Amino acid sequence: MAAYTFAPLTPTSFLARSATVFRDRVAVVDGDRTFTYAELHDRSLRLTGVLAGLGVGPGDRVAALCTNSHVMLEMHHGVPLRGGVLVPLNIRLSVDELTFIVGHSGATVLVATHELADTARQVAERCGARLVVAGDEQDEYGALLDAAEPQPEDLADERDLLAINYTSGTTGSPKGVMYHHRGAFLQALAMAFHTRLTSDSRYLWTLPMFHCDGWCFPWAVTAAGGTHVCLRAVDPAEIWRLLRGEGVTHYSAAPTVLTMIANAPEADGDPLDHQVDVTTGGAPPSPTLLSRMAELRMRVTHLYGLTETFGPVAVNEWHSEWDALTGEEKAVLRARQGVGNVVAQPLRVIDLAGDDVPADGSTIGEIAARGNDVMLGYYRDEKATAAVDAGGWFRTGDLAVMHPDGYVEIRDRSKDIIISGGENIASVEVERAIDSHPDVVESAVVGRPDERWGEVPVAYVVLREGATADAAAIIAHVRERLASFKAPKAVVFGDLPKTSTGKIQKHVLRRSDVQSGPSA
Amino acid sequence: MAAYTFAPLTPTSFLARSATVFRDRVAVVDGDRTFTYAELHDRSLRLTGVLAGLGVGPGDRVAALCTNSHVMLEMHHGVPLRGGVLVPLNIRLSVDELTFIVGHSGATVLVATHELADTARQVAERCGARLVVAGDEQDEYGALLDAAEPQPEDLADERDLLAINYTSGTTGSPKGVMYHHRGAFLQALAMAFHTRLTSDSRYLWTLPMFHCDGWCFPWAVTAAGGTHVCLRAVDPAEIWRLLRGEGVTHYSAAPTVLTMIANAPEADGDPLDHQVDVTTGGAPPSPTLLSRMAELRMRVTHLYGLTETFGPVAVNEWHSEWDALTGEEKAVLRARQGVGNVVAQPLRVIDLAGDDVPADGSTIGEIAARGNDVMLGYYRDEKATAAVDAGGWFRTGDLAVMHPDGYVEIRDRSKDIIISGGENIASVEVERAIDSHPDVVESAVVGRPDERWGEVPVAYVVLREGATADAAAIIAHVRERLASFKAPKAVVFGDLPKTSTGKIQKHVLRRSDVQSGPSA
Repeated sequence: MAAYTFAPLTPTSFLARSATVFRDRVAVVDGDRTFTYAELHDRSLRLTGVLAGLGVGPGDRVAALCTNSHVMLEMHHGVPLRGGVLVPLNIRLSVDELTFIVGHSGATVLVATHELADTARQVAERCGARLVVAGDEQDEYGALLDAAEPQPEDLADERDLLAINYTSGTTGSPKGVMYHHRGAFLQALAMAFHTRLTSDSRYLWTLPMFHCDGWCFPWAVTAAGGTHVCLRAVDPAEIWRLLRGEGVTHYSAAPTVLTMIANAPEADGDPLDHQVDVTTGGAPPSPTLLSRMAELRMRVTHLYGLTETFGPVAVNEWHSEWDALTGEEKAVLRARQGVGNVVAQPLRVIDLAGDDVPADGSTIGEIAARGNDVMLGYYRDEKATAAVDAGGWFRTGDLAVMHPDGYVEIRDRSKDIIISGGENIASVEVERAIDSHPDVVESAVVGRPDERWGEVPVAYVVLREGATADAAAIIAHVRERLASFKAPKAVVFGDLPKTSTGKIQKHVLRRSDVQSGPSA
Repeated sequence: MAAYTFAPLTPTSFLARSATVFRDRVAVVDGDRTFTYAELHDRSLRLTGVLAGLGVGPGDRVAALCTNSHVMLEMHHGVPLRGGVLVPLNIRLSVDELTFIVGHSGATVLVATHELADTARQVAERCGARLVVAGDEQDEYGALLDAAEPQPEDLADERDLLAINYTSGTTGSPKGVMYHHRGAFLQALAMAFHTRLTSDSRYLWTLPMFHCDGWCFPWAVTAAGGTHVCLRAVDPAEIWRLLRGEGVTHYSAAPTVLTMIANAPEADGDPLDHQVDVTTGGAPPSPTLLSRMAELRMRVTHLYGLTETFGPVAVNEWHSEWDALTGEEKAVLRARQGVGNVVAQPLRVIDLAGDDVPADGSTIGEIAARGNDVMLGYYRDEKATAAVDAGGWFRTGDLAVMHPDGYVEIRDRSKDIIISGGENIASVEVERAIDSHPDVVESAVVGRPDERWGEVPVAYVVLREGATADAAAIIAHVRERLASFKAPKAVVFGDLPKTSTGKIQKHVLRRSDVQSGPSA
């Protein structure tokens, strides 16, 4: 075998390529600052020198507590170019939580953007990590970068550790999900392909880059030579300004964030003069949301994945002949999680014994995945790594059915299923029924302990401004659509607690529900 | 490392995926026959059983002498699914040439489509190979397929041999270029990405599938879930019928074939109601051709590669700001071979010592490539494999300059350079000047031995019907555009000899030129 026939797969190759091909085109817009691809590459290479100066060598962990900024993009390129391992931190976590993660990862360097400098200082002190703050009045990051010379390291093996992404840890301690170079390279290509990114794409960073490495879009957009439009805080007015004024063509966000964008007063301004491709995940978009998005010239693709699968391992592949269906029929198809993406292995839905459930659209099993875009395992946790291994397949914890056409549809997270009188109630199904009520913005349904039934469903509902629907109206609306036992026994109105990535925190609702007792 | 984190990269995964996702959509149109993705998968799996029955196991070679047909597509999927090695044969070769290739490859089975049955019978007999003819009045291939059960084999290693593509062998014996699964998987993804294939794409098979495995498009179109529209013979009238009637969205062809399509009487009929994406390679498209194609609603992307690089290792990445340039400026940019594709390593242009030439757009060197879409080497020819290895880089034999913006432009094949009075003349440059004459369809320039100058350029020119330009007019036209010593000393009018892939056979011109002596 000739030496010329091989190169290790690494997402850093995309930046090297675009730094040549698209050198003078804009790679990054971050507020008033813009960087070309040549500049992004140069800065990422200088970052390898900064890291080397701080003692970071191949395999060493470097943590990032950063908003969606040019700094966080540079970390996604510079840390792996140095052979280091990026540990992206959720910026909404407490000092205690962050200290656990940084300590567990063994990161010796922590890079933070100025908005997060206070938190970062406390964490760095408690962990004994070297803190570098970027873009503050005292911009140490920028100063170090200006003074540094590139010191990249060659990649030894394409399955070397690239990043450790800690799970949100809603139950138990956060676990460190290990990404490798090969997986991120392939996942980035899949994202670029499925979302049809080109060198004219302008990708708005509504999705946090710390979340599953931004679904690998820091590398996907770079592969296409498109422009990263940074967004340091999710603000609907600013999003609409960028959609209209900066020609944004793509963005990704959870359905709750889409709801916020679609319901913002700015949405009622001038219609967009171009179509926007939106990728969503974390929960299925409701039919109501989908039709509103279509009105706004936003084409929604539903993706599905977990931290453990480099973000979206599945895509709701759309068939153009489905365009002829009714809005409701389309929404039903669009709400499905779909099929493995173009680089993924096919998803399975398996029973407790690890066998495939029938593809009948009704037998519930657990989604299982394997392949190059599934994690290496949990960092320093062989027990947890083995616990999710079902004969070489990764158990996702998501309960779903396999439809006859091979598309997967989630019924619920296993922990979100409500068992009432021996019947399984998928909270998602009840939420979808509630969301179809014209007065409802969004909802969450959880189980409440009940002496007679074991559990009963309780609905938490956010109404539109000025809406008048009461609990009885919501319950009646659900009863018209679903079996009676699935209708909520109580309805609570008010805001919903959410994670920083826009996921509704059902464990918070469950806890407060038990404490506050019956209502409505 | 958990077991769930890996799967070998193989282009057969794309068919398995599309057989689920796009099962009822049309995968193949071949004359009156159509096959869905479920059917294409089923037939390819049955083919593994046919091959097993004929004694083909992992690593065994299977030759194909096939037109662009459903049979050839099935071979591209079924042979690797069996673990076999596909040897696609150039259907224009003589029995002697084919016998050499089949013998050298050690193929024990030869599958042929009925148009080529007579040739195939002679080759099979001389090589002692088992012949299976498809789609004849006696359709043994179809009968065997109907009776077979799937017998696929798991892939042992992603760099296992997938195919052996023999070079055209214009000098010396054909060499067997070895493709591996990993390379074809990545190259297919790159083709799907760069040409923006989707599940609504309809790809017309103007490019022979036997040529570099059809630039990996048998797998790329399948990855996207698009439709393969077969074309058993290149016939402009039929191509126009398919462009208009079958909604073809993409095709690939050498510039000479594009010239034929653009100059066909059918091109003057109703304009197309949709844009067609055309990929071309083998020679740079001339400015004249490019502007004609634009008029016909065909957007041309110039690709560059060799058999040794799985087809197009490079792509002329277009910057949308270049759209504002003049037609001539655009054509100059479009004629460049470009940059490494999204999965390739960056191309280099190197001197005899293996060092990069300056990126000045004028210093000529040799294009060198490396990476996953470069061959494993030449089959059973370690000497030839080593001969093209320049310190871990594959020497392409193409002479080129590196422009300051990182784009490569070929000046000539090393053997096509004309050395006249100590000056290098790039035949391509002279041809481009000739082709800009309004009376000219296409041209080829070769060197003729000359006592005084060593060599002098001689032009072979095809004129439009009814055109009246004579040799003096052509020579004057060139002199207005290039240095005098580059102008042809003689002009010969008439057809040009071509390979089956549309490349002009300059060695034939050189030979006949020496035999016939001075003209014009």
